[in-house]
Amino acid sequence: MEKLSIIKIGGNIIEDETSLHDFLKLFSNLEGKKILVHGGGKRATAMASKLGIESKMVNGRRITDAETLEVITMVYGGLVNKNIVAKLQAINTNAIGLTGADINSIKSDKRPVKEVDFGFVGDVKEVASNSINKLLQADFTPVFCAITHDGKGQLLNTNADTISSQVAIGMSKLYETSIYYCFELNGVLQDFSDTNSVIKLINSKKYLELLNDGIIANGMLPKLENCFDALKNGVHQVKMGNTSMLTKENDNFTTITL
Amino acid sequence: MEKLSIIKIGGNIIEDETSLHDFLKLFSNLEGKKILVHGGGKRATAMASKLGIESKMVNGRRITDAETLEVITMVYGGLVNKNIVAKLQAINTNAIGLTGADINSIKSDKRPVKEVDFGFVGDVKEVASNSINKLLQADFTPVFCAITHDGKGQLLNTNADTISSQVAIGMSKLYETSIYYCFELNGVLQDFSDTNSVIKLINSKKYLELLNDGIIANGMLPKLENCFDALKNGVHQVKMGNTSMLTKENDNFTTITL
Repeated sequence: MEKLSIIKIGGNIIEDETSLHDFLKLFSNLEGKKILVHGGGKRATAMASKLGIESKMVNGRRITDAETLEVITMVYGGLVNKNIVAKLQAINTNAIGLTGADINSIKSDKRPVKEVDFGFVGDVKEVASNSINKLLQADFTPVFCAITHDGKGQLLNTNADTISSQVAIGMSKLYETSIYYCFELNGVLQDFSDTNSVIKLINSKKYLELLNDGIIANGMLPKLENCFDALKNGVHQVKMGNTSMLTKENDNFTTITL
Repeated sequence: MEKLSIIKIGGNIIEDETSLHDFLKLFSNLEGKKILVHGGGKRATAMASKLGIESKMVNGRRITDAETLEVITMVYGGLVNKNIVAKLQAINTNAIGLTGADINSIKSDKRPVKEVDFGFVGDVKEVASNSINKLLQADFTPVFCAITHDGKGQLLNTNADTISSQVAIGMSKLYETSIYYCFELNGVLQDFSDTNSVIKLINSKKYLELLNDGIIANGMLPKLENCFDALKNGVHQVKMGNTSMLTKENDNFTTITL
């Protein structure tokens, strides 16, 4: 099976011109078929604030009312996505920027209202792996932003980590798929106060140990649940660390397997 | 040679929910391969104004400084483009939204500064017809907004009429290409005060007559120059009128041929 790498970058890279530039070079040099996924929450919050729209968060998730969705569509789908695409073109990566509405690539359901009404937020239902594969086979490099659609004309805001894992699960039918979550840390840490205490390998057994010992908690908990969900659904491996894990020089990151 | 239709819509359609909805249904029902091109100037002006950015125009063309380019990227590439794509998906058209940076489809040169510094405005240099054709061959329907790039990482603002004609010229190597310019009028008018005085056919000879008689002037002049430029460079025909020219019921529009 041919290999496919899905790389997710967060706000810390997008916000900083130099970090973004350096990352895009690493991404561009990465061999084989690949897909980039990005968010842009901080940029969206800043733009919303300029427009006098208050950003409401519940448990770290954005409440997406109609005007917030407009801002997200402008910032994720336009400003961030198209600038990344233009920058990749400049370094010989034939990028194509996408929301889940484009080629009907990621369909989702508007999240039902329970205790919290998240507004125009989508939970992924279906990934059009064959359509995405047509782009890969044409040697285009998809760049997804954190927007999906419901198939009925409505764009929806979907977490970029979720998009990465759901696209990876979908593509696993066709490729040996790896996810690379690039973030601020060097990896999953044994001791949160020691940035170098990277746990290099986490498998199912180790995961349970770490859970029992309370090493994995707070923000890391949903991230790792997300990883194991992907692995159980056909994804080959997940790597977490800073962007230098994309180079061969750095082996100080976390690899997660079943 | 297989047929390809390139349809350009202006602000009057984009601004109005009902008009847009009705147009997208007509577009969706159009047989054969097709490409949609849209602007969004009024929306961009409104958004710029909300952000306290003054829109500067010279001879009807926008001066695109760095912050205006950001607004354009957000509004054309994000808000307008992705909502059109989502709406087309809802009516069974497998749309894909593009700027000229995506798949390096439209490369342009930043306009040199002469009497006026237009800022980040691009004059089209190269259309990647083979790459665009890969999307058409995959049964995707490209939806272009009025943004190109210079190939060095810079997005540029390019007039949507120009994008339509340049893409049409590029695609004429591969398809019998027709351009449909949808606008407020029923077509090119013999008498500007009579909206029904549509000139049904304009060829090179008729064009010279109309020029001599002063029938074609002001805003129509660059539009028709643009049409004849396209026709001289391989485009099969150009049609100008309101959106109902996409139906078989209406034959009250202007057809332009060499």
